[in-house]
Amino acid sequence: MSFNTFGKIFRFTTWGESHGPAIGCVVDGCPPNISINETDIQIELNKRKPGQSKFTTQRKEDDKVNILSGIFGGKTTGTPISMIIYNKDVRSRDYETIKNKFRPGHADYTYFKKYGIRDFKGGGRQSARETASRVAAGAIAKKVLENKIGKKYKVVGAVTQLGILGCDEKNWNDKFISKNSFFCPDKSVIKIWEKYLLSIRKAGSSCGAIIQVRASGVPIGLGAPIYSKLDMDLASAMMSINAVKGVNIGSGMNAAQLTGEQNSDEIYNKGKKTRFKSNNAGGILGGISSGQDIIISFAVKPTSSILVTRKTIDKFGKNTSISVKGRHDPCVGIRAVPIGEAMMHCVILDHYLMHNAQCNS
Amino acid sequence: MSFNTFGKIFRFTTWGESHGPAIGCVVDGCPPNISINETDIQIELNKRKPGQSKFTTQRKEDDKVNILSGIFGGKTTGTPISMIIYNKDVRSRDYETIKNKFRPGHADYTYFKKYGIRDFKGGGRQSARETASRVAAGAIAKKVLENKIGKKYKVVGAVTQLGILGCDEKNWNDKFISKNSFFCPDKSVIKIWEKYLLSIRKAGSSCGAIIQVRASGVPIGLGAPIYSKLDMDLASAMMSINAVKGVNIGSGMNAAQLTGEQNSDEIYNKGKKTRFKSNNAGGILGGISSGQDIIISFAVKPTSSILVTRKTIDKFGKNTSISVKGRHDPCVGIRAVPIGEAMMHCVILDHYLMHNAQCNS
Amino acid sequence: MSFNTFGKIFRFTTWGESHGPAIGCVVDGCPPNISINETDIQIELNKRKPGQSKFTTQRKEDDKVNILSGIFGGKTTGTPISMIIYNKDVRSRDYETIKNKFRPGHADYTYFKKYGIRDFKGGGRQSARETASRVAAGAIAKKVLENKIGKKYKVVGAVTQLGILGCDEKNWNDKFISKNSFFCPDKSVIKIWEKYLLSIRKAGSSCGAIIQVRASGVPIGLGAPIYSKLDMDLASAMMSINAVKGVNIGSGMNAAQLTGEQNSDEIYNKGKKTRFKSNNAGGILGGISSGQDIIISFAVKPTSSILVTRKTIDKFGKNTSISVKGRHDPCVGIRAVPIGEAMMHCVILDHYLMHNAQCNS
Amino acid sequence: MSFNTFGKIFRFTTWGESHGPAIGCVVDGCPPNISINETDIQIELNKRKPGQSKFTTQRKEDDKVNILSGIFGGKTTGTPISMIIYNKDVRSRDYETIKNKFRPGHADYTYFKKYGIRDFKGGGRQSARETASRVAAGAIAKKVLENKIGKKYKVVGAVTQLGILGCDEKNWNDKFISKNSFFCPDKSVIKIWEKYLLSIRKAGSSCGAIIQVRASGVPIGLGAPIYSKLDMDLASAMMSINAVKGVNIGSGMNAAQLTGEQNSDEIYNKGKKTRFKSNNAGGILGGISSGQDIIISFAVKPTSSILVTRKTIDKFGKNTSISVKGRHDPCVGIRAVPIGEAMMHCVILDHYLMHNAQCNS
Repeated sequence: MSFNTFGKIFRFTTWGESHGPAIGCVVDGCPPNISINETDIQIELNKRKPGQSKFTTQRKEDDKVNILSGIFGGKTTGTPISMIIYNKDVRSRDYETIKNKFRPGHADYTYFKKYGIRDFKGGGRQSARETASRVAAGAIAKKVLENKIGKKYKVVGAVTQLGILGCDEKNWNDKFISKNSFFCPDKSVIKIWEKYLLSIRKAGSSCGAIIQVRASGVPIGLGAPIYSKLDMDLASAMMSINAVKGVNIGSGMNAAQLTGEQNSDEIYNKGKKTRFKSNNAGGILGGISSGQDIIISFAVKPTSSILVTRKTIDKFGKNTSISVKGRHDPCVGIRAVPIGEAMMHCVILDHYLMHNAQCNS
Repeated sequence: MSFNTFGKIFRFTTWGESHGPAIGCVVDGCPPNISINETDIQIELNKRKPGQSKFTTQRKEDDKVNILSGIFGGKTTGTPISMIIYNKDVRSRDYETIKNKFRPGHADYTYFKKYGIRDFKGGGRQSARETASRVAAGAIAKKVLENKIGKKYKVVGAVTQLGILGCDEKNWNDKFISKNSFFCPDKSVIKIWEKYLLSIRKAGSSCGAIIQVRASGVPIGLGAPIYSKLDMDLASAMMSINAVKGVNIGSGMNAAQLTGEQNSDEIYNKGKKTRFKSNNAGGILGGISSGQDIIISFAVKPTSSILVTRKTIDKFGKNTSISVKGRHDPCVGIRAVPIGEAMMHCVILDHYLMHNAQCNS
Repeated sequence: MSFNTFGKIFRFTTWGESHGPAIGCVVDGCPPNISINETDIQIELNKRKPGQSKFTTQRKEDDKVNILSGIFGGKTTGTPISMIIYNKDVRSRDYETIKNKFRPGHADYTYFKKYGIRDFKGGGRQSARETASRVAAGAIAKKVLENKIGKKYKVVGAVTQLGILGCDEKNWNDKFISKNSFFCPDKSVIKIWEKYLLSIRKAGSSCGAIIQVRASGVPIGLGAPIYSKLDMDLASAMMSINAVKGVNIGSGMNAAQLTGEQNSDEIYNKGKKTRFKSNNAGGILGGISSGQDIIISFAVKPTSSILVTRKTIDKFGKNTSISVKGRHDPCVGIRAVPIGEAMMHCVILDHYLMHNAQCNS
Repeated sequence: MSFNTFGKIFRFTTWGESHGPAIGCVVDGCPPNISINETDIQIELNKRKPGQSKFTTQRKEDDKVNILSGIFGGKTTGTPISMIIYNKDVRSRDYETIKNKFRPGHADYTYFKKYGIRDFKGGGRQSARETASRVAAGAIAKKVLENKIGKKYKVVGAVTQLGILGCDEKNWNDKFISKNSFFCPDKSVIKIWEKYLLSIRKAGSSCGAIIQVRASGVPIGLGAPIYSKLDMDLASAMMSINAVKGVNIGSGMNAAQLTGEQNSDEIYNKGKKTRFKSNNAGGILGGISSGQDIIISFAVKPTSSILVTRKTIDKFGKNTSISVKGRHDPCVGIRAVPIGEAMMHCVILDHYLMHNAQCNS
């Protein structure tokens, strides 16, 4: 059971509501003697922070993290690392509209039906604000992996599709990703993406996105068949992110259309190195990492809180309609990039520890 | 940790290799006083059984299940249900080819690298033969859910795409699915599918497929946010099936291309019933079931054991090539239908119990 | 894996060090719609609070709890309840002595050897200060159980032996327990206990204790054989408390000396009620609650931080000796009473939910 | 949740009823490349086997184990090891007496109340026959630990008290233990123990026992505070054995009577080795192994199935009495010795892997 805990050995537990006093997480199972400070975590949090461009929500949050335990003299002690982020820009008046009405596409209805009670302020626990905690946990996982594996270990995420607009993966440029408001890896599409998203915003609408996350330098052998396969846990991790509806490993859904010889990645040795001629597998075979880059893509549905009026019901069972004002991202997918990276770090570290437990003890 | 165990309250543990004496599973956490017999399980196993048409492997296995514990006087006692299926048609001579060579696209290479040892006979533990155990576990979950929820509860899976050929979901016919060799729901495409797969087979190749599984009659409120979301666990379940590379919930990857108003399913009440105008959500909002049909699709990559010669290396590091004879499915995706159904049953039962634990105690 | 998490469905995760900024815990899996406020928790915390009599440590801590999430409008929402307690009376200068020396009987040596790093201030994570978090979690479990089962549900703990001095269980008086500094249930021994403990304190020494915890009103059927037996989980819970070295269920270790007819509790019906002639079983048969009072006792070893000089080594491997000044309880066992009660509440609630999941869904 | 599974990384799941066709277990998480064969396991099973002396049940069972998976070419592959033991000497007619009556002290009543159904034959799942599976799992853990740690790793269990009769631990002789019917470590008491147990048997009664298990050569640092402490998991392991009512680590319950200076084990270095002047801690400090011998004792209550007539009720609620004939051990504690050893192996291996995962990766 893991209602609010993710992971097996390296585990994090998140807590907190959008408009409560604070959110936070407790990271457990972290190896000792790893140098970590608040800045390491803040750097990652800043990537996800709202209010950074006209393309994200205008809610202003510093997302300033405080470490409350588990670090001594700048190093992890192997005991739980508790982190807290205070909520600042809480405007509860914005949420009178949704107090009694269920936003279509949102979890208002199902939370209410499940629990019989619902913190409606800013979506309460449903809010994507929870993901800040994951980014904090991911920052720790990243530091551990860089310490254990070295600098060849690297995770990069990007938005590869914005609504109906794709980009050309051949133009993928790691450095460009952090230099634009979309985490887009392809410079050539930025202008059109900007126009498109502004028009979406203007229309009081929203759009979906596809995020791709790539990990390189991952050791061979991570992944525990049958029911802790690396791809299974990655799919699970990404699907746990708010609004995600689909996950692809390597060629993903497209694998259905390939023949055996198109799909299976041929293997060869060059010097002492084992190489593959292609990477349809997305770096995972039989649930175990092959040493190739791990490549995962996931689709984020369009924000459900939109200005456009939609039909719905209220908690008393009456038919009604809703138009959500508040401050919302026109494309929540954009801010999902650092979250996807964080989840990738956490899953890889978890499997790294798991693999060593069974196979390298 | 759950190397070979799936589930949280309703849990099953599978064991066994393709060419060992037997395979089996232990089902734990099953509610007591549910009538179950071997026939209930055999019916489901027979759907997955190899050698049933020219479109699947010619390996002949009865897949006859024996219940060894947990049932008393025809009813579950709440104690673990152990089931065993003996392997019959084991031809180890077929596997000399792959003893030292790694099949591209297969887990030969990663298992060897992970464990330093590999049961190469029929793929050992990597073999999809393991999935028979899941089908057995799923048969039990199905019986429990039918007992608890009643006959309105129903799960149906089908192949909706075979290689490059799709079908028309508007022609979906539950009854037709079991009457053709492809678990295809659309009668109109059968002829062309047959021709296509025979040509694939003849070419010594293989193809992928997309499977869709639909569950109706699922109660509202199942799913435990944040880290046991129903869609997260379903994605995890399907991704754990051999050769699966992508998973969609509802509109899935396609959600990226929709606008907020296209995607969010409007809600209305008709009489005392709550209804939705569409089902892009695939029956799940915020990780919790909404009462709509749960719809999940997953892509199965083409069989990696093909006759077509492919470049690879052997376990000594030498470059070589391989052509796999043996008996293999030209499209493993077909036999994934009952497996997908089984996993759906297991996840839903698990969440049904979990939900009652927290919210209905 | 559960390094810092306890429980299966009702779970709590604790964090924090003795001399860090704060300690706290996250309670997960709590049923929704239960009225809980900070006062409910504070009442329990106050029982464990240090500095309340001359028989406990003189460290002054308010142990004021803040709830940061999971409660909305005074009720649980089913989402994680995060609680924080700030550390106030932190005198790090007291701990220079133990910075490099390992206190015999303490975990200084093993923490250092395990992790290669150690927060020595006040024992860091080893400190019994962590138990405040458990008491907070237990307060929530108590409220839930009182809501579900009603007022017949009751848990009472007491010190039944202080060092070499026992008490007479026949004189057990629930109300008296909270009226003396020892949580002693027998008024007749108080005077001698006081004298004894003052002499221990004066000598710069410490003594052990036995704590008994009784739960009444527990429903029949809680406990999940084989590996989540109620007694197994209770033993585990109590053994997890700092300094506990032995656990008895019912007649406990003494059961070894009984014959079958002395030990087995005869059963009879009186009216519609099932009764037992004795309670050697401590309310648990085959790992399942029988409806009798659950009775568990555990031994707390004497405080290891004593003024008496003891031989030890330092972290550089040199032989040396140590005399610990600081502020320490002459008998830590006393403050273990509310902790034992808290763990009893948590285990019973966890099994209550677990039982309903499998058997009452 | 772990109804029938024990362990965290090295996990075993047991299944089967006393009078069903077979019992067995699935061992998961075992490191690869360890040489194991059926004889290794049989040797341990033979120690627990019934019918070996006049002091144990006369049920005749070979307890012949078959390995069904997870071993390839004589070595573990890292995949689940399934083992099966067929039941042979099943005389169900013996159990008509207990079909409708609840044996006092037995789990008949609580199983029936919990599940509403009960396999009464030989106690069904309640039967201590389940422990054969643990011994099989323990045999595997032992082999792994001998491989990893070397021959200095050793676990020895013995009966140190039989009913009212103790033995002198100073006479403890490892070799003598296997040479007498009681697993007694002290030759000097054998004669009187024999007489005593024969008289108990003749009287149609039974008696309890205390078992002590010692592990030497255990590395420093095993045990994961706070909620996977080594002593916590050992207590849990021993308490899960049928009929166990109390558990002591080191000085155990007796620690309550000691002063701080009596109890805390002084530390010193001799050459490069760290030594302790005593072992009241039982080899565990703060839940972590110290390198000293781990010493655990547990009490097994007297067999509840006795010839002496006892008052009870039947399943229809009527008051009645019972005298159990069948074939029962006059002291089940004796056969608990190999079970206690097995659980010790399993817990130590589990923590060995866990420790390496977090601290040696």
